[in-house]
Amino acid sequence: MKFLHTADWHLGKKLHGYDLYDQQKDILQKIVALALSEKVDAVVIAGDIYDRSIPPETSVTLYNQVIAEINLEAKLPVLVISGNHDSGTRLGAGSIWFSQTQYELKTRLAESFEPITIDQTDFYLLPYFEPVDARIYFEDESIRSIHDAMPKVIEKIVDSFDPTKKHILVSHFFVTGASKTDSETKIEVGGLDGIDGHLLAPFDYVALGHLHHKNALQLPNARYSGSPLKYSLSEKDQAKGVFIVDTSDKVSFEFKTLAPLYEVVEIIGSFSELTDPKFYQSIKRDDYLSILLTDRAIIPNVMNQLKEIYPHILQIERATGRENSVKNQKKAARIKSKGPQELVMDFFIEVTEENLSAKQIEWIQAELSQALKEGGEK
Amino acid sequence: MKFLHTADWHLGKKLHGYDLYDQQKDILQKIVALALSEKVDAVVIAGDIYDRSIPPETSVTLYNQVIAEINLEAKLPVLVISGNHDSGTRLGAGSIWFSQTQYELKTRLAESFEPITIDQTDFYLLPYFEPVDARIYFEDESIRSIHDAMPKVIEKIVDSFDPTKKHILVSHFFVTGASKTDSETKIEVGGLDGIDGHLLAPFDYVALGHLHHKNALQLPNARYSGSPLKYSLSEKDQAKGVFIVDTSDKVSFEFKTLAPLYEVVEIIGSFSELTDPKFYQSIKRDDYLSILLTDRAIIPNVMNQLKEIYPHILQIERATGRENSVKNQKKAARIKSKGPQELVMDFFIEVTEENLSAKQIEWIQAELSQALKEGGEK
Repeated sequence: MKFLHTADWHLGKKLHGYDLYDQQKDILQKIVALALSEKVDAVVIAGDIYDRSIPPETSVTLYNQVIAEINLEAKLPVLVISGNHDSGTRLGAGSIWFSQTQYELKTRLAESFEPITIDQTDFYLLPYFEPVDARIYFEDESIRSIHDAMPKVIEKIVDSFDPTKKHILVSHFFVTGASKTDSETKIEVGGLDGIDGHLLAPFDYVALGHLHHKNALQLPNARYSGSPLKYSLSEKDQAKGVFIVDTSDKVSFEFKTLAPLYEVVEIIGSFSELTDPKFYQSIKRDDYLSILLTDRAIIPNVMNQLKEIYPHILQIERATGRENSVKNQKKAARIKSKGPQELVMDFFIEVTEENLSAKQIEWIQAELSQALKEGGEK
Repeated sequence: MKFLHTADWHLGKKLHGYDLYDQQKDILQKIVALALSEKVDAVVIAGDIYDRSIPPETSVTLYNQVIAEINLEAKLPVLVISGNHDSGTRLGAGSIWFSQTQYELKTRLAESFEPITIDQTDFYLLPYFEPVDARIYFEDESIRSIHDAMPKVIEKIVDSFDPTKKHILVSHFFVTGASKTDSETKIEVGGLDGIDGHLLAPFDYVALGHLHHKNALQLPNARYSGSPLKYSLSEKDQAKGVFIVDTSDKVSFEFKTLAPLYEVVEIIGSFSELTDPKFYQSIKRDDYLSILLTDRAIIPNVMNQLKEIYPHILQIERATGRENSVKNQKKAARIKSKGPQELVMDFFIEVTEENLSAKQIEWIQAELSQALKEGGEK
């Protein structure tokens, strides 16, 4: 059988303040069209349907229209899990009714151990969960992190394998060895948030969500589909699209690029070049632009002047500024490479000139888990 | 056929700061049990499922569990409309899937003209809507209020009547002639929000939601079921429950009282009486209490002292205070009897000593509609 693997739709997301509703609607229609033209037997969405736990009503409507089109009109099974940006409870309201037409929406750890079978292929739908969920589910107080929980989860799944079937895992976590971009909220606390890549070995394919770059992970049997749109400037050079996975014989997969309504592009030039009709009539000037201005002189009201020509400016940088700020950027890069726990600990040590006790580290972890859970959405 | 008529569950509501989750869960279980023991053929819920457009996750889970129990376990049709406290869009997400098992959830005016037929009885599900929805639906710019819209809505419904069937309207509005209590948010603007009672004449029965008192309206063929619990002190003397409606032969209906976990009760006494074990051991002291203290002396820390005995105190009043405040209460009662538009107009006239122009009145109506729509939830 063949299925389409997508994730990280982040419906309701804004890009530097710009509403992306039209972009999102357009790209979802392209995903539906591709599913039909590729004649897939199912569509898999690996979490982060919405950008936040309480999405705008327009996003709720858009999502339900698209799923109805795939599931009720085209009669295709739809397999969905919740991600860290979704509220599992809100997303999953009514999911018992959905499963009657093979729209399978799983939002709780407990639901991940019973596979959904489609044409000799078993799909295990493992939504994003918190360590406390695993602690309760396995009745095991020693589980303090996802890192502790995941071997138990995978073991329980693998124990149920039917050897006559293919086995697909759908999940939404950071897999050790994968690399991040700016638009994924950091969720690790102490680097213990992820799945060890080697745990994924028993599966024929692992359809992942969470990281936005399709190349974030290069295991032979696992992929992040990436987000269908560029959700931050740092994603500007990434190809966006979905995977088409074929489970007949040995499982194979192929990435299909999808073109957005508007691209995210960096353009470089002087103010006079950028305001020259010969230049701006030659490019798609409604793309989302990061502009690098080469002028050294002060230009009054530059943003408003340029916005009259380019409606979707994400930012304007000065080339001179960029040179000057190399030092700052290096410092910023150093900070960015640290997780929240490390930052809090550094700060504590800097202020108190003392090291943290084990108890204090535990408090920080607990508070950060809570804060990231509640405020994880950007 | 027989059906159960309920409304105004207001899941997620608090009563003077007390969480009502346990109360609400209990009363919904009693409603389910009654539906089964009465062997009804359907359950009708006439709006205000939730107390606000974004309800707590616990309420979402509770609601879906109860509906699953009725619809998927007991296999009964469930007919639901959204009320003014609900977000139609959020509540209705996924409703296309629900209708496959006759869980019919209607949240848009456009959905109200196609009846749901159960055993020779046609149910028209007319959710709460705004004048603008009717303006768009009927393409009629002259519709400025619900009062303008309703004759057109009812006419369109009646035009589609199948004379061989019984006709039930399920709706969530103020019907002219009905009387209100404190826990219903005022939604009328200029008294133009309602349904004229005579418009309801063509129906065999009208199952209404919105007002919390089962006796709020006394038409031969229409009832408010009232809320299943007392949601304000002013409802303390109301019987709460549901209607069982029988559509065989001439439609008949009977009110069934349901007992809550805790009652809302006023008790009167002196501090020494109320703190006497002989008294408080003789009553259900975990009821929600409005206490009228007869003492004239100052009692320090009275609320905390009484809360040690009575865990659910809604308010403490002094009998002396009550006497003194009769004058204030009369003024408050005068203000309460006025709608928001009248209050704004009075205020304008008091301040400017001028009357309002027609344009100004229109502005006030538009702004109030908007404000009530956005802030309607308490």
